[in-house]
Order: sequence, then structure tokens, then C-alpha cells
Amino acid sequence: MRDVYVLGVGMIKFGRYPDKDVPQLGAEAALLALKDAGMSMKDIELLVCGNLFQANAMNAQRILQQIGQTGIPALNVSNACATGSTAFREAYLGVASGMYDVTMAVGVEQMGKMGLLGGGARSGGESVEGVLGSGLMPAVFGQAGVEHMRKYGTTVEQFAKVSVKNHKHSVHNPLSQYQVEVSLEDVLKARMVAYPNTLYMCCPTGDGAAAAILVSADKMKQYTNRPIKVACSVLTSDPWTERDLTMPDVNTLTRNAAKQAYEKAGLGPKDLDLVELHDCFATAELLHYENLGLCGEGEAGRMIDEGRTALGGDIPVNASGGLLSKGHPLGATGVANIYEIVTQLRGQAGARQVEGAKAGLAHVIGLGSACTIHILTA
Amino acid sequence: MRDVYVLGVGMIKFGRYPDKDVPQLGAEAALLALKDAGMSMKDIELLVCGNLFQANAMNAQRILQQIGQTGIPALNVSNACATGSTAFREAYLGVASGMYDVTMAVGVEQMGKMGLLGGGARSGGESVEGVLGSGLMPAVFGQAGVEHMRKYGTTVEQFAKVSVKNHKHSVHNPLSQYQVEVSLEDVLKARMVAYPNTLYMCCPTGDGAAAAILVSADKMKQYTNRPIKVACSVLTSDPWTERDLTMPDVNTLTRNAAKQAYEKAGLGPKDLDLVELHDCFATAELLHYENLGLCGEGEAGRMIDEGRTALGGDIPVNASGGLLSKGHPLGATGVANIYEIVTQLRGQAGARQVEGAKAGLAHVIGLGSACTIHILTA
Repeated sequence: MRDVYVLGVGMIKFGRYPDKDVPQLGAEAALLALKDAGMSMKDIELLVCGNLFQANAMNAQRILQQIGQTGIPALNVSNACATGSTAFREAYLGVASGMYDVTMAVGVEQMGKMGLLGGGARSGGESVEGVLGSGLMPAVFGQAGVEHMRKYGTTVEQFAKVSVKNHKHSVHNPLSQYQVEVSLEDVLKARMVAYPNTLYMCCPTGDGAAAAILVSADKMKQYTNRPIKVACSVLTSDPWTERDLTMPDVNTLTRNAAKQAYEKAGLGPKDLDLVELHDCFATAELLHYENLGLCGEGEAGRMIDEGRTALGGDIPVNASGGLLSKGHPLGATGVANIYEIVTQLRGQAGARQVEGAKAGLAHVIGLGSACTIHILTA
Repeated sequence: MRDVYVLGVGMIKFGRYPDKDVPQLGAEAALLALKDAGMSMKDIELLVCGNLFQANAMNAQRILQQIGQTGIPALNVSNACATGSTAFREAYLGVASGMYDVTMAVGVEQMGKMGLLGGGARSGGESVEGVLGSGLMPAVFGQAGVEHMRKYGTTVEQFAKVSVKNHKHSVHNPLSQYQVEVSLEDVLKARMVAYPNTLYMCCPTGDGAAAAILVSADKMKQYTNRPIKVACSVLTSDPWTERDLTMPDVNTLTRNAAKQAYEKAGLGPKDLDLVELHDCFATAELLHYENLGLCGEGEAGRMIDEGRTALGGDIPVNASGGLLSKGHPLGATGVANIYEIVTQLRGQAGARQVEGAKAGLAHVIGLGSACTIHILTA
């Protein structure tokens, strides 16, 4: 396989765009990525679009209708919350294979005010969890948090601090859906959604789009002398496991992906300067500290207490504001966290810059089930 | 890029399965492909599922739930009628890249009795064609036929002969949705759908699934000494073109893909022993004779008159029965025509066998727009 580099990234501010449609949002992000890379659509050899809610609407081709129908191969992928990162991965594979030198991934979603009710393969009336209502996302991640409290004594306050931290980070991200700080008291007093996650501990709904341009080594050298390399691209699904209501697949899925990712990248958690992980709920972020090996088993609560994952800490997590504050337009999320890592590795993250960042990890988990991890290095 | 081989294929009989769901149909095809390859799910390293109507339902993962959750990467793609062939192509890229040695593509659709009303990116009220109703599939392919009649004097009878031929072929295909001959008179007297295509000149609706297992050269050698090689995998979208109502993108799309396919495979139309092409309507088949270079411009009518594309002719087209009689469960179609080519190249096609077939071309077109061409060689 050939080495692959990210040459350009683009992202629109996450929020509400009731007057636009999915292809328009995707096209805007694509144009920003082209501008960032110093390229035009004529340079792009493959387009992969990730979109979940309108997965069969030929959005890749509709985006090309708006920004340049050059005849290139275009395809559409979906993979629950990992939809955008799976699109990125297929674009990566296009370059890694040697078939193309320049590919583009666009992740885009228009959710409006639709909630995260589905549970992927385990939702609806087809499974035990579906019948019991525990296949609903807030329930899945609430239960996982409760289990962590039971096993390790993690507290509600520790989970709530995730929300405080990520909202604080997002104040410095102009593309974040929300840019307001919340206090620990605000978070704890907010309406309970599914114990222990209150409203501010759940990601919002909204629209968004992000795009990335991937290139081969030769092409990269023509455009930049500050390469951002894709050190690994990993996708996993549910391994065989005993399914029960208290330990959903969020942990095993991520652990398997992390193991593969560190092995392929030849890097470990200690080599990372920042992490963008899938904090769809505050409880999820603490679980993933351990799943990704950022701390030992049961130590996630202490890790947030000590401020190690805040900006200024030794391993900032979700410097962008994360899903909790930056937002989580499903298909866009996986490309948006690549956007953040690339921006940070370039030293272009402004007030939220992680100084001297050389390696970052982007993690996405989709229940139903798909987990992606991309490690990028400068 | 590495060479890629098709080691196993599986397909269920196309038809109606109201008591089953998409994952069940897909799993059945996957198990048949595994049996054919002499492999188990433990050998599969990547699963790509193509499904259109339920593109966001995580069908790849749901199939794994039924036949083995080994933790492998799984993703879902959609690309209009080229959905299945795009899934095949992503599985191909997985092996070609060197990332995997064994991958699986499953194409599956449950259409019930739903009609082919959509027109992809040009359907609905968003385009001129949509507003005029001409974005409907029967209208698009009817108009394209009328244009061919105007330009070259092609007759309704010539188009109708496509239906007669493909229905005749399908009598020998036990997996075909229909296995009955129709006479030229039957076809011409059938209810008009969109001139010049009568009911028997339109593909039926129905359910179906097909699967293919792709492997690297090393892996292939462990399992067989009769390799079927993927000589090229091409995907194109609409090039810049003046859009009008009489010449839809079906022609340009296929011509662009064919040019690339012959170049990449190092083969020309004269090297082919059989072709499975996208005869969603009888008019389409004749257009594609010319688009694929099987005959010269305006010669398609004479080609069908002379029986050159019938079994026993010099270049049999749609020996399987084609979409017109075998059926067209959208997401399954692109993998099903790979199934037919592989079966023929192995000499396992029974009464419909094209003697001594060494090279076959599988063509799919999805309006909206996506065209795939795969050339396979024995």
C-alpha cells in the first residue's frame, strides 16, 4: 500500500440550515477543501460521499452537479455515526491502492431537529433491546456510564466535567454549533435525559458538512512541504460477544479498533498529542479514555478530575468542542474530526491550538456497528 | 495495484420474498458464495454491502449478525442501479490496495412490487425533467429509443426482439425471476408502458441477492488452479454535457466507462466472449451495443436482427436472461451479472453456456449517475 496524505480540509459551521439541502451543504465544504488544498475539481479523481439520512439519494453525484461534473467515479457510503469516517477511509483506499493520486471525501448531514432515536441494527422491535427501549442511544450510553460507576466508583460529577470541558473548548472554535461555556452546576441541574446524562451531556442535533482531500506522496510534494500523513485507517465491526443490556458494544468495538490502529501506525497512546473522540454523550468520553488506552482501567474519572484531557493538559481530548458542543451531524462528524486533527497538526487552530502537536487520533463509533480510528501525523 | 481474482460467487433465485428481510436475503447469497469458494466467514477480511432502498440500515452489519460477527470492517454503499457493482468495486479495491487478501461484496434488494419511478439526481421536482415527468425511468429509456429510431431508422420490432431473446435465454437460468419464452407478437401486443417499450420490454420488480468473494493472487493459488481475474474495474459519473430531454446520460456515461475499461483491461470488444449489460428496458440494450463498441454507430438494430447477440451468436448478450427476465432487484443486479460472467468463464452455465468463454464484460448503469464496467477473464 502507498502512503496517503491529507492535503486539504474544509468544514462549514455546524448548526441549522433549513433553507439549504444536503448537496448544497456538501458542496460548500468541498469548495472549502479545494481552496485549502489549492486545487480545483479537475484535480479530483474520485469522490466518496458519506451521508446517513438520505443515503440512497446519490448525494455524491448531486454535489458534483454543483461544483463540477468531470466524469469521475463517485459513490455513496453509510455506516451509522461512522458514515463520514468510512467515506474518508474509502477515499484513503483509493489513493493507497495506487488507483488514484487525488481523492475527496465529503461527509454531510441535514438532521434538522431530528433526535438520535435509532439504535442501528439493534433498534426497533427486532431485538430484545429494541423491545425494551434500551436500544435508544441515550439509554445505551446512560447504561454504559452506570456500569462504569458500579465497577470503578466513577461519579456523576466526573461525567459532567466532560461537558464543562468540551463546551469550554468550543468557545475557541468558530465552526462549533455552540460557543458558550457551561458550569458544572449548569450541567448537573439540566434536565435529565437518561441517567447519568443530563441535557448538556448529550450531543445536540444539527446540520453540517466537512470535506478532505487525500493525495499520494508524489502529489503531496507538488503542493506542500508540510505533509500530514494518514498513519493508519482502521474500521471494525462487532466481534462475537455476549450481548447484554449493561455493556453495549461501544467498548469492545473501540478497543479492537485501537489495538489495530496503534499496531498499524507504529505508535502508542503516549505518542499522541491530541485526540478527537466520539463524545456523543458525556459518559462515552470517559469510557473511551480507557478504550483508547489514554489511561488505565477505571482511571478515567481521575483523568478528567486532573484536567489532563483539557486544553493545556498532557493529552487534550476534543479540543474542537467535541460532539457535545461542536455538534454531531451524523454523516459529517467523521470528516469533521479529521478536519480538527489536520488543523491542529498544521498549527492553525488559533486559541485552541495544542502546542507542537505532531500526532493526533480521530475516533468515531457507530452503533450497529462500526468503529473507525485514523491516526494522523505531521 | 495488485491483481484481484473472483474465487467464489453466490446468488439466490430472483423473485418475491415477502416473508424475509434484506439481511436474510443477503446472508443467503453470502453463504452460497462461501460454499462456492470453499471458505468460511473466518476467512473474510472485509464486507461491503450494496443496498439501495434501505441504504442507511447497516445491512452489512446485519448480514454479519446472521453469518458470523468476526469483527471485520463492514460498510454500506449505494449508487442507484450501480449499487451492487459499486460494492463489488470497493471490495475489489480492498484487495487491489494490498490491505486485504480476501473480501466479500453482497448486493441485495427487497423491492416487493415497488416500481422504478425514481430518476436519481434528476427525479422529483428539482429538475426540468422531474417537473415534466420525464425523469421517470420508463420515459428516459423510451425517449432514448425514439431518438435512436429517428437517427438510424431502428424499428420497434428490433427493440422488441431484445425481449424475445432475453426471455428465451432465461429459460435456461434456474435463478431467473421468469423462465418463460415470449414471442415477438406477445411483446408487441403487450400493454404500452412508454413508447416504444411495452410491458415485456421493461424489467420486472422483485427481490434478490448475490455475493462475490475476491482474493489476491497468493490466496487464489491456495484454492484453485482455474483463476477468474478481474481485468478492470471502472466507475464513471456524468461528464459535463448539454442536458436535453432526448439524449439522457445513459449513452455518454457508458461510452466513457467502456473507453476506460478496454484501456485498463488491454482488451477490446472483439476479445469478449459474452456481455451482461444493463437492459433495464429493451431500448437500452440496443443503445449499449453501440455504447460498448460491440457494433458500429446505428448498427444495433441489424445486430439483433442477425442474431449475433443471442446464445450461439458471436457475442451473446445477457445469456442469464438479463434484467428483462432474470430480474432487477436494484442493489443485487451489479453482483448478479458478475455471478453470470464467473459462471460462464468456469464453464458451469449448463444449457446457456457460451462455449469456450474466456473473457466477459459486466455493465451496469445507474441514472443519477453512475456507470460501472468490470471485465473478467479466465
